[in-house]
Amino acid sequence: MDKEISQAVIARLPRYFRYLGELKDSGVERISSQELSRLMHVTASQIRQDFNNFGGFGQQGYGYNVEYLYTEIGKILGLDKKHHLIIIGAGNLGQALANYMNFERRGFIFTGVFDINEKLHGKMIRGMKVRPMEEMQEFVRENNIDIAVLTIPKEGAAAAAEKLVGMGIKAIWNFAHVDLDVPDSVQVENVHLSDSLIKLSYMINQYENELEEKEKNASGEA
Amino acid sequence: MDKEISQAVIARLPRYFRYLGELKDSGVERISSQELSRLMHVTASQIRQDFNNFGGFGQQGYGYNVEYLYTEIGKILGLDKKHHLIIIGAGNLGQALANYMNFERRGFIFTGVFDINEKLHGKMIRGMKVRPMEEMQEFVRENNIDIAVLTIPKEGAAAAAEKLVGMGIKAIWNFAHVDLDVPDSVQVENVHLSDSLIKLSYMINQYENELEEKEKNASGEA
Repeated sequence: MDKEISQAVIARLPRYFRYLGELKDSGVERISSQELSRLMHVTASQIRQDFNNFGGFGQQGYGYNVEYLYTEIGKILGLDKKHHLIIIGAGNLGQALANYMNFERRGFIFTGVFDINEKLHGKMIRGMKVRPMEEMQEFVRENNIDIAVLTIPKEGAAAAAEKLVGMGIKAIWNFAHVDLDVPDSVQVENVHLSDSLIKLSYMINQYENELEEKEKNASGEA
Repeated sequence: MDKEISQAVIARLPRYFRYLGELKDSGVERISSQELSRLMHVTASQIRQDFNNFGGFGQQGYGYNVEYLYTEIGKILGLDKKHHLIIIGAGNLGQALANYMNFERRGFIFTGVFDINEKLHGKMIRGMKVRPMEEMQEFVRENNIDIAVLTIPKEGAAAAAEKLVGMGIKAIWNFAHVDLDVPDSVQVENVHLSDSLIKLSYMINQYENELEEKEKNASGEA
């Protein structure tokens, strides 16, 4: 892939992959961009444009081959390879993520969980015992870990990230409420839950302002 | 605000708000767009452009007034109003979200938690007992609930969303792995955790492909 694909297209790929996986699981073999458009509530032209970034996936005759499209998008997303991940932080969020069986289906193998809190050491989370942070380096090396999931408070996150970078981790999935400073060779995906909730507040506010505006205009016209 | 603000700008506002809150808490009174730029790793021109959507927030002399900027962006985000939220699903994720004290600081008041599982009824989560779903309607009405947080499996999510819409909820923060179909009057913010993890896989894959490409070119040149 020589051409630079826009961030917006990339952000949409996992959703295509999710819908195609569901179609595949329900036994659908072919789908047109129109049908996919109705299902996903995006325009058919957007779908065709997005897919054209990757050569169009050969829509011929009646629609796309679902299995082929699913496999090809999976390859673009790197889901044809297995990833081994560890979770740093054995709190509720760490436990919730460890129990998301869906990740395993996508090739993300939950391999270990670590916590600074001694009281949690030895506790079992989805068949894995919680280990002390001191064991992390050896564990990462021996188990070919490429992704670390950070579910610890922001105070410890920067130091943990620095350690992980030193261990040669490839990627950090960051739930700590802080932006991490890592080299370009380490991929970071932030899930700032507060930012997401705040966006919801914005949408409520915006909708109510528009409603008020409309009512004002309506009463002005009356 | 008559002008249409782009989704990209809106998506960046919570991050500005977060950084400004931290600056305010550390006692910083004024900051220039250059300093903010260094701190946030975005260009100063992007910051000025973003702020110009809202009238620029009056940068005069040396930089922006941090407290003023924080308050004004908070208003745009609707954070000057309180929101009451309930959590549907008392599993690990629901518990993790209930325990995020940060939400309360931003005016999101955790008011109740519901679950379909009888075994969980009466269990205490951050001072609230888990209630049966049957009590939800009355609870929503009596407690002025405007946001529902969905942390249940996707199988039950559509039905729960429909019920919530019928109860007049204003917004749904959706962690269920399914896109909800609700009227325009109900705001939905999706947190598709799998999509986010898959994006990380894409980034790892992309980085490794580029590295391989570079090595190939380097050996070709040698």
